[in-house]
Amino acid sequence: MIKFDSDYLEGAHPNIIQRMLDTNMDQSDGYGFDEICESAKNRIRRACNTQELGIYFVAGGTLTNLIVISASLKTYEGCLCAETGHINVHETGAIEATGHKVMTLPTEDGKITASQIEKACEDYIHDPTITHVVKPGMVYISQPTETGTMYSKEELYAISKACRKYDIPLFVDGARLAYALASKGNDVSLNDLVNMTDVFYIGGTKCGAYLGEAVVFSNSKLEDGFVFNLKQKGGMLAKGRLLGIQFDELFKDNLYIKICAEPVRFAIQIREAIEAKGYKMRYDSLSNQQFAILPNDALDVLKKKFSYSYMEPYDENSSVVRFCTSWATKKENVEELIKAIEEL
Amino acid sequence: MIKFDSDYLEGAHPNIIQRMLDTNMDQSDGYGFDEICESAKNRIRRACNTQELGIYFVAGGTLTNLIVISASLKTYEGCLCAETGHINVHETGAIEATGHKVMTLPTEDGKITASQIEKACEDYIHDPTITHVVKPGMVYISQPTETGTMYSKEELYAISKACRKYDIPLFVDGARLAYALASKGNDVSLNDLVNMTDVFYIGGTKCGAYLGEAVVFSNSKLEDGFVFNLKQKGGMLAKGRLLGIQFDELFKDNLYIKICAEPVRFAIQIREAIEAKGYKMRYDSLSNQQFAILPNDALDVLKKKFSYSYMEPYDENSSVVRFCTSWATKKENVEELIKAIEEL
Amino acid sequence: MIKFDSDYLEGAHPNIIQRMLDTNMDQSDGYGFDEICESAKNRIRRACNTQELGIYFVAGGTLTNLIVISASLKTYEGCLCAETGHINVHETGAIEATGHKVMTLPTEDGKITASQIEKACEDYIHDPTITHVVKPGMVYISQPTETGTMYSKEELYAISKACRKYDIPLFVDGARLAYALASKGNDVSLNDLVNMTDVFYIGGTKCGAYLGEAVVFSNSKLEDGFVFNLKQKGGMLAKGRLLGIQFDELFKDNLYIKICAEPVRFAIQIREAIEAKGYKMRYDSLSNQQFAILPNDALDVLKKKFSYSYMEPYDENSSVVRFCTSWATKKENVEELIKAIEEL
Amino acid sequence: MIKFDSDYLEGAHPNIIQRMLDTNMDQSDGYGFDEICESAKNRIRRACNTQELGIYFVAGGTLTNLIVISASLKTYEGCLCAETGHINVHETGAIEATGHKVMTLPTEDGKITASQIEKACEDYIHDPTITHVVKPGMVYISQPTETGTMYSKEELYAISKACRKYDIPLFVDGARLAYALASKGNDVSLNDLVNMTDVFYIGGTKCGAYLGEAVVFSNSKLEDGFVFNLKQKGGMLAKGRLLGIQFDELFKDNLYIKICAEPVRFAIQIREAIEAKGYKMRYDSLSNQQFAILPNDALDVLKKKFSYSYMEPYDENSSVVRFCTSWATKKENVEELIKAIEEL
Repeated sequence: MIKFDSDYLEGAHPNIIQRMLDTNMDQSDGYGFDEICESAKNRIRRACNTQELGIYFVAGGTLTNLIVISASLKTYEGCLCAETGHINVHETGAIEATGHKVMTLPTEDGKITASQIEKACEDYIHDPTITHVVKPGMVYISQPTETGTMYSKEELYAISKACRKYDIPLFVDGARLAYALASKGNDVSLNDLVNMTDVFYIGGTKCGAYLGEAVVFSNSKLEDGFVFNLKQKGGMLAKGRLLGIQFDELFKDNLYIKICAEPVRFAIQIREAIEAKGYKMRYDSLSNQQFAILPNDALDVLKKKFSYSYMEPYDENSSVVRFCTSWATKKENVEELIKAIEEL
Repeated sequence: MIKFDSDYLEGAHPNIIQRMLDTNMDQSDGYGFDEICESAKNRIRRACNTQELGIYFVAGGTLTNLIVISASLKTYEGCLCAETGHINVHETGAIEATGHKVMTLPTEDGKITASQIEKACEDYIHDPTITHVVKPGMVYISQPTETGTMYSKEELYAISKACRKYDIPLFVDGARLAYALASKGNDVSLNDLVNMTDVFYIGGTKCGAYLGEAVVFSNSKLEDGFVFNLKQKGGMLAKGRLLGIQFDELFKDNLYIKICAEPVRFAIQIREAIEAKGYKMRYDSLSNQQFAILPNDALDVLKKKFSYSYMEPYDENSSVVRFCTSWATKKENVEELIKAIEEL
Repeated sequence: MIKFDSDYLEGAHPNIIQRMLDTNMDQSDGYGFDEICESAKNRIRRACNTQELGIYFVAGGTLTNLIVISASLKTYEGCLCAETGHINVHETGAIEATGHKVMTLPTEDGKITASQIEKACEDYIHDPTITHVVKPGMVYISQPTETGTMYSKEELYAISKACRKYDIPLFVDGARLAYALASKGNDVSLNDLVNMTDVFYIGGTKCGAYLGEAVVFSNSKLEDGFVFNLKQKGGMLAKGRLLGIQFDELFKDNLYIKICAEPVRFAIQIREAIEAKGYKMRYDSLSNQQFAILPNDALDVLKKKFSYSYMEPYDENSSVVRFCTSWATKKENVEELIKAIEEL
Repeated sequence: MIKFDSDYLEGAHPNIIQRMLDTNMDQSDGYGFDEICESAKNRIRRACNTQELGIYFVAGGTLTNLIVISASLKTYEGCLCAETGHINVHETGAIEATGHKVMTLPTEDGKITASQIEKACEDYIHDPTITHVVKPGMVYISQPTETGTMYSKEELYAISKACRKYDIPLFVDGARLAYALASKGNDVSLNDLVNMTDVFYIGGTKCGAYLGEAVVFSNSKLEDGFVFNLKQKGGMLAKGRLLGIQFDELFKDNLYIKICAEPVRFAIQIREAIEAKGYKMRYDSLSNQQFAILPNDALDVLKKKFSYSYMEPYDENSSVVRFCTSWATKKENVEELIKAIEEL
């Protein structure tokens, strides 16, 4: 069975394991206050082309989202997000469990727009029952989105401008950020994220690390007190350097983006093979996740050899499924999948 | 200015104030453990035609909703409700503040259906990522709904059956219950509510009381530990008899329904006057709230003498507004409004 | 049976009920945005001798405490209080249910000291594991305390100074404030509370009202967004004027303090009778609650005719009990109790 | 500088890193539903001598404590623990942030007793204001405790019996469990923990793993729904096998206990050296943490070469400090420390 289920099937990039070996018996301070974490933060600052950036490492994505959002919102505020947003649909109510409403906006492709944000804020401000409604207190978007689409620099800039107009922080979930940064369809750099957001995270788990996400605060006011929230919500690892190692290696010699370029090309090749057979894609993705609408009998054939994620029925005879590549995807497996698609 | 803004403009039914006067210097135990509360509970039990019912009095509706829902749900469960549901749109995120997601279902008229509930439960059960999604743990509906519509006995029975099939408690918000019970369009009795729900509340504040809602547990399992939640969330009044007085009077000689019959007739008369002029209603309401789609210039005329609730723009030239009657609405004021409508 | 159990045995001062009658059919805006509430706030501002004061009315004490504290604290902060503090021992974990630790300080008499607060803050600041401990984010005291004792102006000033030194808001629970203000042993005025605290509440429920507490923000920064918390936690009554009526009457012609002077004198008389018989008091109270250490066989005699609150066993043969007077306590009942004590 | 600050200074036991290398490019299911996790669970079941045990892996201790406790308690319940308990003093209010009170019991040595638990439960049950107080809903103890002491089998049995008498689950925090299991002073086996507790965790982070704690449910009722809480609180790693690897290696050939026996012997040797010089220990610890009361001038000498944890001042001239050994502590470093102590 060849697996295209997800981008967290394998372990970590070999450089990371090697670094764990090399440093294993070194003694270092706990809770992320060690030299490797410091080095990793500096590498990220350089990659972001910004000297002053508060950076924190957290073990996983849901933990990151719930800590960042609950640390940022006032008690009576909620977080705007696409109805397809990860925090809305795949975190078992993690945000609500911290006391805050996820305020959904409709979307066709996983993205939301500046004008949706502006409308939500205007509606709030002018609501005659304003004391009875939830105040939008943060905007959450994902880059790339959960459907594989990406915000262009222009779109992100418009969103950023809307957020600043209404004094609402913008938070970007970059669980798969490397696959956006490495895509030809992308024109948003790390430095753009620093300039246009208040806080974002650079995903490690799905982009070459064994675990870990790097939270980057471009807005230092928002960072105030974050470390206490991090500890309170269980986000601090005693041996914090484990997370430092992941990012110190990933941000050495641009490894983070380098290792994710090929899987994005693979994903596009898979997409092209599907479209060449006359099938349609559910979303217009140029990153490592491809959502195809395939006939159920074609899927019956494919699933003998390949695994993928089943998303939802499309109509009576076809379904939406996801093929996912990663830094660890092997070329020969992609070729086999493409061949199988061609033979459908 | 004649006010049709809401059903909480005046104080309380005179019998209630009189009873407060009569008993004012009596000494009684605190926190609802007094004889008047006991008497009120017994009257409600008789009105419900059921001997065994756990009953608790709470000061207001939002407080009631947040206590009942947070006391009933497990940590990882959410509450299904219409997207127009009060807990979703008008409680400043009260439910989420207790840690739970409000899981919205689309609606045209403020009501949800048994099949929507069944679908939500089936989707949940069959979700391959079940550990990542919120479990539907309660169904919340309002009778009458926030748009003035009512569930028929048949609809409620179907919802009840769906809830029991999936072992999910059904909670009915009866903030305006008297206006449903007193409507000719209604065939759901208090006894039906006992039989078909797990918990519901009988609204006092908007139906003749100065304040207070009576929570009725038809499912005694759900009641377990409720009193501790009531205290923890600030829902216990030290002089709890104040709430007992409201309901002991309202449930004496069927006062609760009696005083709400006329305002429902008034509301229908207002609706008929609007429709007679060729205007449309936004919702098909047979209770005390009437939502009309009126031309903005007609509203300009009306608002010189009458106040009402502005809901939302309908199109460029007209808006949705609400006229609300109550047990305290005066006949002459209704007549004046109808005359003004006729003269538009 | 003559009751000395508590100060919430009777209804409300007759002026309040009369005002309810007089205004019952008036129409007014909901949620506290009405003229009576405005008038009541102005009367309180005058009594506090301060023009600019944010004032909010809440139905009860636990609700007030949990809203004020959770609205004021950051997510990682806790609230310092005496181990005997109401929020620590008698609110079913209401503060923790909003996500915050109650950080207790030992006390002999129900009061805490400025130096205890300073030590807690110094310990926090110098804790080498500072990210792992809860930050003191508010100080909660009661005036009078739960044991009937009172802070002197000097003590309160020292506490206020300590709080300001460490930039921590000071919150005073005044559930029984009238009984302090009316006591000869008191030298702390309402104006002192304004000057020395950041927020305090003036208790209504136990001091002549049927229900209601008036939250007074002397620190306007702390007030920011409070109204949203008030709604979210269920603290807004639709017919908010009910609370306005309580305080508009209580603060007319100094009624609030006037009606509580006699019960304090009664309490002192009861205390003197107990001490005259050679029994000891558990706390040195000059307000309306008196905690006596009485032999169990004496209690057996008293309880035939009088009820009181049992607190705890003192030793094998005696117990601590509380006698509580209120604005509604009758002189003849006090005389009977004193006579019974003398005859023990 | 030779470090005795903590037991999380180094990386992981070499077998773990080797296993990570060996399996790195294998593809496995996410979120802990993989074969390595399954194997690890089975090894733990065998070590516990019990076939049926629900086992979950969590990244760290605070995260484990907050998930287990919040998943177990009802909304109005709190968790009994020693005032020195980790959840009370070193988790930044993590438990309270989930809505629950940590109910502290006084302790001299870090342990609590069965009779303290019984008294707390009896006091609760007989409290005349029972609706106003927090219900003890769980007992939390640590083995070994935060002060290095250990519960004997007899003590644990008594606690277990008390918990069962009052129907309260017993939870044992085993962050350093290996150092208890490997101590000569210990007579509590893993199987005893299964039989006497409802849930406990086997610490990995401080006992040879890079990260990870294994939660073991001996009471299957308590386990119900735990997986949803795990996800909601951010406790699921996408590449869950990382945690499986830690425990599959640690529980192969009894490695977990084997590697912790020597550091416990080292700790005792350090203690003996201190006592031989006439200094006193703060606690009677037979595990890997030793708390010594040393003159400040002796500490001035030691700290030139050795680091340790400063705990608190003991008196004007001496302080309490902690020396901590681990599976990675080197014999020569221990010898140097002992020599330095002897030369004081």
